[in-house]
Amino acid sequence: MKKPILPKGTRDFNSSELYKRNYIIDVIKDTFSKFGFNPIETPSFERAETLLDKYGNEGERLIFKILKSGNFLKDTDISDLKDKNLIDLSRKIVDKALRYDLTVPFARYVVQNQNDISIPFKRFQIQNVWRADRPQKGRFREFLQCDADVIGSNSLMQEIDFICLFEKVFTDLNLSGCRIKINNRKLLMAICEIYNCKDKFLSLTNQLDKIDKVDRIDIRKNLLNDNFEANVIDSVFNIIDLSADFNKNKEALSEIFSSSQIGSQGLSEIEFIFSYFSKNKLSNSKLVFDIGLARGIDYYTGVIFEVLPPENVFIGSIAGGGRYDNLTEIFGLKNMSGIGISFGLDRLYLVLEELDKLPDYSNNSTQAIFLNFSEDFSFDLINFSNILRSNNINCEFFPDPINVKKQLNYANKNNIPYVIFYGDEEKESCNYKIKDMNTGIQEILTLEKLIKKLKK
Amino acid sequence: MKKPILPKGTRDFNSSELYKRNYIIDVIKDTFSKFGFNPIETPSFERAETLLDKYGNEGERLIFKILKSGNFLKDTDISDLKDKNLIDLSRKIVDKALRYDLTVPFARYVVQNQNDISIPFKRFQIQNVWRADRPQKGRFREFLQCDADVIGSNSLMQEIDFICLFEKVFTDLNLSGCRIKINNRKLLMAICEIYNCKDKFLSLTNQLDKIDKVDRIDIRKNLLNDNFEANVIDSVFNIIDLSADFNKNKEALSEIFSSSQIGSQGLSEIEFIFSYFSKNKLSNSKLVFDIGLARGIDYYTGVIFEVLPPENVFIGSIAGGGRYDNLTEIFGLKNMSGIGISFGLDRLYLVLEELDKLPDYSNNSTQAIFLNFSEDFSFDLINFSNILRSNNINCEFFPDPINVKKQLNYANKNNIPYVIFYGDEEKESCNYKIKDMNTGIQEILTLEKLIKKLKK
Repeated sequence: MKKPILPKGTRDFNSSELYKRNYIIDVIKDTFSKFGFNPIETPSFERAETLLDKYGNEGERLIFKILKSGNFLKDTDISDLKDKNLIDLSRKIVDKALRYDLTVPFARYVVQNQNDISIPFKRFQIQNVWRADRPQKGRFREFLQCDADVIGSNSLMQEIDFICLFEKVFTDLNLSGCRIKINNRKLLMAICEIYNCKDKFLSLTNQLDKIDKVDRIDIRKNLLNDNFEANVIDSVFNIIDLSADFNKNKEALSEIFSSSQIGSQGLSEIEFIFSYFSKNKLSNSKLVFDIGLARGIDYYTGVIFEVLPPENVFIGSIAGGGRYDNLTEIFGLKNMSGIGISFGLDRLYLVLEELDKLPDYSNNSTQAIFLNFSEDFSFDLINFSNILRSNNINCEFFPDPINVKKQLNYANKNNIPYVIFYGDEEKESCNYKIKDMNTGIQEILTLEKLIKKLKK
Repeated sequence: MKKPILPKGTRDFNSSELYKRNYIIDVIKDTFSKFGFNPIETPSFERAETLLDKYGNEGERLIFKILKSGNFLKDTDISDLKDKNLIDLSRKIVDKALRYDLTVPFARYVVQNQNDISIPFKRFQIQNVWRADRPQKGRFREFLQCDADVIGSNSLMQEIDFICLFEKVFTDLNLSGCRIKINNRKLLMAICEIYNCKDKFLSLTNQLDKIDKVDRIDIRKNLLNDNFEANVIDSVFNIIDLSADFNKNKEALSEIFSSSQIGSQGLSEIEFIFSYFSKNKLSNSKLVFDIGLARGIDYYTGVIFEVLPPENVFIGSIAGGGRYDNLTEIFGLKNMSGIGISFGLDRLYLVLEELDKLPDYSNNSTQAIFLNFSEDFSFDLINFSNILRSNNINCEFFPDPINVKKQLNYANKNNIPYVIFYGDEEKESCNYKIKDMNTGIQEILTLEKLIKKLKK
């Protein structure tokens, strides 16, 4: 028989990994609550019609689709099968799909529950999403996203608040030097307006999205291929370079964008945010303006964020987000501006692991184990275990009276700090011999003292 | 545009529902840890070959299957499509399936990690499973299971320990009167042996599985249809009735099963368990022996459990479990006897809700909100919020300076207990007006006193 294996891009988690993952999740969850967000959860799969056509062609390819139950061919006819048109056929044999992100299900939730929620609606959601992406370091096919969103207000106070939230999470994780990049999609739209290439907005953002990974020479080549003029490309690179020092180049940028209404607006939004942080400096992370930041997600319409780890860590972005003006419109609810951010747990884990900032875990929360010397003591061991448990001590007994060395080996392998000996002698004297597995020190204690010791 | 809807049998959870669900989950998780179990997690989907052929025809029908990514027809040919053989075709276009229970993935985990785990291996796992069952009260297509298992020892101490674990969970949930039914599959095998119908074991367990929901007359009819002789059926019903009072009818049962080795063994296992609990009575739940308990799951080979809610609550079983001798054998690892139990969160939730034993939740964990009187105070409100947050107070600000009544209405609807007024007057005096939304009482406090008040 073949040894079983996992699906590509998925993982089992053992107790030690879960302990460390939960440490990060708890910090994020706690911070979301601190900032007034409340949790919701949505189902793992949505109706296919809810998810399809929402993520562009590329996204659609990566969505896991669930076969209809029962006769999945019932809505097909022989020509569908003969034609082998994969997209058409898949839409007929599939009726559900796994969550691809938390944002579209959130928009669906808001529209569906619009009469029960109060606006602005602040929610956080920490759940798995699934993407049929090619697995690589820090990228899996099942991964946990930690999202917070506010919907129903376009106040820029929220942009500032989310930057404060990033700062608080990284501070609480003891992670300093993260680079919180911000930009405004309005400035990218303005660039296309100013240089007469409004029809090429998507092409520009697509190319800029790679600017951290790809050489500028290649970006330039691609943009030329997309029929951008050489001088326009130079201007774009120049604007990006100016944005790197906002306080110094504020006026130059103002002038560049002065001819565009959306550009001026976008820049004044950035100025508002920077004016807060010039008075209230971040002590832990760095706030970086970068007009080259594009984010490959179509629904963003205003300020966008991307967070990079400290400069000595070579792992992609660990968080992101932005403002979207029309997300719920896809489900029929207009004029609900929203803004949200998302932490990628796996990337954060890798960064903290590389910097050795994950907490130590003994691999076991069990504090003590009763060794088993004879079936005669079976009932006693169960009883004593229950007494310890009712005193809030996590404990177990070894279930079989096998060789003691093997039992001690089990305790060692599982990092159980104390073993308790209970045999004829102990039964007679009503005492318990307890051994500290780290120091090797043994003590003989009454039950009362045993409880007191383990409760520490 | 159509209002979006959820897939059949799935649910969104709002904050209040999550709070109550997490209350139950935390009790179960805490108890699992108390008893020495450590958490693991497995992926939401497994390779199709891992799950298929494991749950019988009925189960297989209920498994959600995931379409291959990309060209899902690549392993089919035109005859597959023409034949429309659903099972054959689905196996060619599908390569993954959603977890149907936590037990098979656990067996897969044990086999795959056999060199890293120490035996006996105790794990708990609290994760969603998915079944394409017809939805009804307390039955959903996505639901949370809470499982604990020990694998690698056949000590009956574990059967007793799991009953103690049930007792502790229900005690901690303040739920008394649950009926923990136990039986031994060995006794059902023995009945088939004694009455010469070994080949009809599955038919017998299938019929007995319905005994709580269906009238005995119908069970009798079905068994006659399955070619059980009338006197055998009478004997079976008689044995079941005898089992209801084990202590009284111990000898009669002993005699009935004396001719069967497996029967005698099964009965002595039950006797061992009852002898523990006659000395250590359960104070909260009732332990009930019932030879009519069959459990519809094929892999059980020894003691089986099923827990019913208190008698005044008409909801099906809230937990179950049993011993299985050969579960990991399906993945090639023999001789690993295991035993496990499972709580169904949704059923437990319904029972506690019906008995009004779920904790109250204010629908919001936010303790205070700053009202917004003018954009002039934007930066102040963000600052003050951050000061409260750094003092461990969950708070938010209203993002827009709209009509105050509307802001108060938001606070009310979200059950935020305190609102803080900060306007010109407060700015000048460095004081904050705080209003208790429950009592209506207002106070004017310094920042220090405000923090002290909210920290309570």
